[in-house]
Amino acid sequence: MKISEQGAFDLASRLLEAHGAPPEHAALQARALVEAELKGHPSHGLLRLPRLLARIDRGLLAPGATGLHHWTASARLDVEGEDGFGPVVAMTAIRQLEQRVSQTGIAVAAVRNSNHLGMLAWYVEQVAAGGRIGIAMSSSEALVHPHGGTRALLGTNPIAIAVPTAGSPLVLDLATSIVSMGKIHHHAAMGQPIPEGWALDASGQPTTDPVQARAGALTPFGAAKGYGLGIAIELWVAAMAGSALAPDVRGTLDADAVCNKGDVLIVIEPADSPDLLARLADYLDVIRASPSADARSPVRVPGDLAQQRRSEALMRGFDLDPALWAELQALDRSTSLNLEG
Amino acid sequence: MKISEQGAFDLASRLLEAHGAPPEHAALQARALVEAELKGHPSHGLLRLPRLLARIDRGLLAPGATGLHHWTASARLDVEGEDGFGPVVAMTAIRQLEQRVSQTGIAVAAVRNSNHLGMLAWYVEQVAAGGRIGIAMSSSEALVHPHGGTRALLGTNPIAIAVPTAGSPLVLDLATSIVSMGKIHHHAAMGQPIPEGWALDASGQPTTDPVQARAGALTPFGAAKGYGLGIAIELWVAAMAGSALAPDVRGTLDADAVCNKGDVLIVIEPADSPDLLARLADYLDVIRASPSADARSPVRVPGDLAQQRRSEALMRGFDLDPALWAELQALDRSTSLNLEG
Repeated sequence: MKISEQGAFDLASRLLEAHGAPPEHAALQARALVEAELKGHPSHGLLRLPRLLARIDRGLLAPGATGLHHWTASARLDVEGEDGFGPVVAMTAIRQLEQRVSQTGIAVAAVRNSNHLGMLAWYVEQVAAGGRIGIAMSSSEALVHPHGGTRALLGTNPIAIAVPTAGSPLVLDLATSIVSMGKIHHHAAMGQPIPEGWALDASGQPTTDPVQARAGALTPFGAAKGYGLGIAIELWVAAMAGSALAPDVRGTLDADAVCNKGDVLIVIEPADSPDLLARLADYLDVIRASPSADARSPVRVPGDLAQQRRSEALMRGFDLDPALWAELQALDRSTSLNLEG
Repeated sequence: MKISEQGAFDLASRLLEAHGAPPEHAALQARALVEAELKGHPSHGLLRLPRLLARIDRGLLAPGATGLHHWTASARLDVEGEDGFGPVVAMTAIRQLEQRVSQTGIAVAAVRNSNHLGMLAWYVEQVAAGGRIGIAMSSSEALVHPHGGTRALLGTNPIAIAVPTAGSPLVLDLATSIVSMGKIHHHAAMGQPIPEGWALDASGQPTTDPVQARAGALTPFGAAKGYGLGIAIELWVAAMAGSALAPDVRGTLDADAVCNKGDVLIVIEPADSPDLLARLADYLDVIRASPSADARSPVRVPGDLAQQRRSEALMRGFDLDPALWAELQALDRSTSLNLEG
């Protein structure tokens, strides 16, 4: 079924407020979930809302917390997340980085004990909208095996990079696993096999059975190189945030434990050169206009497809699993009854 | 044939000095080349020395330049490379970043108009040896096609990341192409076909002929994700350094043009937490000890294999193409004759 951006945002923020979130925090968290839906990343969308509500109810997520943001050096912000909403803690940090960076040229925040950020693209494209380069990285639960290994020991360790141009920004957002665990769950729910090369089963053997894969490990993207990038992000984040390493991470996929992964956020001023942003835009246009291997698929720049999906979804709504929508509406009704009762 | 580290270093630094490099600059450039040989990356090793000498002789490389290093903001160093040796300009920048970072927590240098850095791992592992996180990125000539595209429009855009631990550091160093153009040249020289999936020919068709590939484009690693990382590095470097974009880059592979690519160097203080570095080392040991898919190949951490090769090469020497060694010795003899004459 098709859901409108406004309808989804209103329901999500109402539910978050009903569970104790201050209106501003509810709006930020709801916005992060809805943006993921608009851009076609439902695994980081409304699917996560019931779990967030359960986490609040169980005292694992403090909906009023914004985190303790403390400059340990002039360009380094240390953030104790106080179990707050990921988007609230991170956006508070980013606004401070953006203020600081005009004096320092680059500024970084290391965040621990904050909840899941969701889709990282949303953060860095807000930085790029202000004319700066934005980078975001997170660690996560152990879901990915090392290249040449068989055990899930690495997080999916996503990274997002946005660079402003005179046209639309480049917005890269990738997990260092070949696919998300959400996609494996989706195949399991549909009873469809997964392609070879996506995952190993619990015994370390390649599998095309999503149920076996769910109990096993995702494969890193790009063989040794993608594994290398993933483990570098794992260590980089932990070394800056003092957060848990993947085998000890909990709380982004459950409603049972506080969230102890880490995030790193970086804001950088581009060079002060008059034609620079136009030159970057022109280069991206040359790439977009270059000959494609398949005439039906033009060459794309990271962020283009998500932006196109977003524009369409703003006009026509986005697809949502009717069962999830019904669940959210039921939660909404029961909350209203509680408030009235 | 086997060459000793000392023999290679002496010959390289003597040749560089004979062509006008001050002894300290010759030593740094020679060290960068020899370290690449020791770690098993001959494409960034002595193979590049005759071209560097030719570049000096033709006035494209200024062997006495260290670059103009200027803090445009408290944590941002702008570097005009003055056509200097890549290692000289970059190491001068890194030493300044290392001094500054104790006040700022993070510091970045953007370098333009400097020559080829060679193997990026060498720079970041020196940062990690000082207990800090090091990141290095460079842009390069257009050699790589976009994912789904057919034309060489992106640089190989390497990135290196080193994170210190209580044991050996993690040292990642990867190009965003699936292989280096050096490997294609090597296959061409040997008359061997290249594997499918490495490259396209000049008409944009997949090829296993290295001669056709040389005139075509390398494929990005990791499909859309590796392409995304490569183009993000391309824009990130250009946006900070104001350097050329890949189609306009010259001077890392020729002796005909000044070198106008860019480099970004970042130094970061890790969190000040007592058991942090031990925790990172323990985690890497868990990964190394984890079960491997192939009993003959243990699971490795980025940097392990290069470090192992380096240890062996320090003891037994490293393999070098005898023709290249003969060429370097002939250059050495002719230089000595010139000096005597």
